[in-house]
Amino acid sequence: MTTFTEQQKRFWSPQVRELEPYVPGEQPKIQNLLKLNTNENPYPPSAKVVEAVQSVLANQADVLKLYPDPDATLLKQAIARQQSVEVSHIFAGNGSDEVLAHIFKAFFVQDKPLLYPDISYSFYPVYSQFFALKTIEVPLTETFEINIADYHQPNGGVILANPNAPTGRAVTLNQIKQLLEQNADSVVVIDEAYVDFGAESAVTLVNQYDNLVVCQTTSKSRSLAGLRVGYAIAQPHLIAALEAVKNSFNSYPIDRFAIAAAVASFDDQAYFEQQCEKVIANREQLVAQMQQLGFEILPSKANFIFATHSQHQAIDLAKGLREQGVIVRHFNRPRINQFLRITIGTPEQNQRLIDSLKQIL
Amino acid sequence: MTTFTEQQKRFWSPQVRELEPYVPGEQPKIQNLLKLNTNENPYPPSAKVVEAVQSVLANQADVLKLYPDPDATLLKQAIARQQSVEVSHIFAGNGSDEVLAHIFKAFFVQDKPLLYPDISYSFYPVYSQFFALKTIEVPLTETFEINIADYHQPNGGVILANPNAPTGRAVTLNQIKQLLEQNADSVVVIDEAYVDFGAESAVTLVNQYDNLVVCQTTSKSRSLAGLRVGYAIAQPHLIAALEAVKNSFNSYPIDRFAIAAAVASFDDQAYFEQQCEKVIANREQLVAQMQQLGFEILPSKANFIFATHSQHQAIDLAKGLREQGVIVRHFNRPRINQFLRITIGTPEQNQRLIDSLKQIL
Repeated sequence: MTTFTEQQKRFWSPQVRELEPYVPGEQPKIQNLLKLNTNENPYPPSAKVVEAVQSVLANQADVLKLYPDPDATLLKQAIARQQSVEVSHIFAGNGSDEVLAHIFKAFFVQDKPLLYPDISYSFYPVYSQFFALKTIEVPLTETFEINIADYHQPNGGVILANPNAPTGRAVTLNQIKQLLEQNADSVVVIDEAYVDFGAESAVTLVNQYDNLVVCQTTSKSRSLAGLRVGYAIAQPHLIAALEAVKNSFNSYPIDRFAIAAAVASFDDQAYFEQQCEKVIANREQLVAQMQQLGFEILPSKANFIFATHSQHQAIDLAKGLREQGVIVRHFNRPRINQFLRITIGTPEQNQRLIDSLKQIL
Repeated sequence: MTTFTEQQKRFWSPQVRELEPYVPGEQPKIQNLLKLNTNENPYPPSAKVVEAVQSVLANQADVLKLYPDPDATLLKQAIARQQSVEVSHIFAGNGSDEVLAHIFKAFFVQDKPLLYPDISYSFYPVYSQFFALKTIEVPLTETFEINIADYHQPNGGVILANPNAPTGRAVTLNQIKQLLEQNADSVVVIDEAYVDFGAESAVTLVNQYDNLVVCQTTSKSRSLAGLRVGYAIAQPHLIAALEAVKNSFNSYPIDRFAIAAAVASFDDQAYFEQQCEKVIANREQLVAQMQQLGFEILPSKANFIFATHSQHQAIDLAKGLREQGVIVRHFNRPRINQFLRITIGTPEQNQRLIDSLKQIL
């Protein structure tokens, strides 16, 4: 970021001068790039998405002159059908990042600290700073697992990603139940961005626990990262807090194309399941191939793997791959700086990754 | 809103329990409705928008699997071309409501109070409450004009809508210069949602004033309310604060359809000018017709008018219009509860409004 003078920065709100924003995985504009750095799906969205968007374009896209439904009711209904929950249990927003931001504001601005793992989605500390929260980063175990008992301490909320990022490791529904029960007076958020690739969703627990919020996205398993639709599922007294926050911030966050496209995706369950199965199969194949190359890989329930090699510096591997046009994510942070987070591609893409690694190792 | 028990609300962040969210103009689902309540454009967007969105749909909308450019560079370039400003002077977001929310956070969280007119966009007090700001609501004059001298008092920021909503009255560039000069140590935001219908834009002042932020939207003059694209124009040291806030909140707020469609709209200057001229001509005709019916109408530079009738209660007129399927906006607030805010339609729509009014008066 360009540096500005104190004279120029006097205009900034004091807190904003101290912010350390989130850094998204890069989106380079390079020909013949193999982009395995932002956990996007290698397959296109449902063909029904194209039809749905075409319908918005009818009559010179005349309908675009009108605001979208601020409540995105059609979208909530489609999510409700697919998830077998009530419409009143759904909150929708501009990507799960916006939904998470509203969750932090709605529930976690408390006297007691928010708890989350020391290694998890790197936006959690950013939100925490943004909302000036007290936080405790709870260490993962040596094998990068979440120990639920560690979250049995005074708190003003708990957030876990399940599967966790960037490790890919998942907790079970029984562990989540334990977490909910030992924190009955705090909101527990399970961020399920990657849940559809093999972990157990906590959505089935929403009716049973009045302190549970489950957050999901269309960006990964539905191949709609380009669209920006995320949602939360919880009991109505929690949804109401999210709506109050959203309607104090931006009433119409989801545009007409995004609503139409996401509805079409939720209504095409067969395609969704097929694509998730493909990604899972590709992952298992890639894991086997990389293990043969000497990598250790954490057990992943996500559309990425977290891999380390005892004979090679992770940062050198990332650099070597980059020279061959393959981009993976390396986090230069304590504990995980010898790991690479690699998004699962198609079999052909994964083969290119393996071929590139063979050149380097 | 459903009422929840204290037991249920213990999960909410304490501040969120007190929020009074914004209430958007209703979006009723009624057949043959004439919707003159949310200041939408009566004309469709540029035909180039359809082509641009079609290109996103190519190859089973394959590109949707990838995140959009978090910086929306193509969009900023298109805005830069159209507005004759540098790309580095542009911030883009999910509708001008999101841009305004980020503006409030970036600049107005100060020890001194934010100043805005007592009658203006009703989201300003909502943002102020959301960010826990001190505010002074500066009264408009008896004739609903902004008196710039009234804003010469200690403050941590000033925001004006120009033209103002819901009055439609505009201030001049000279008045804005005076405002900027008398508040050289505060950020002055000019919210130009409606500027293209006849007011003078302050964008031409951005290079000259280091404390000016101009906010615009594609929702009104570009017939793209369904899309959610807004933007701010200011010097880079102010844009940087907005980027820091945005990247601490939601990195990818503008989806691929919205970016493509908005770029196409900015690149079709001829259509844009033509449609704005039509709306202005329709406004002048409607004003004349309503004056003949005994309405007093504030001088409007917007795509709406603010009208009152000495012989009729505004709320009764709104109700009578509604019975005929014509929806206008009535604000049940002091000083303006005898006014109706009426969006400018096509000549045919405006004629239907006039015919409906004749039935009531």
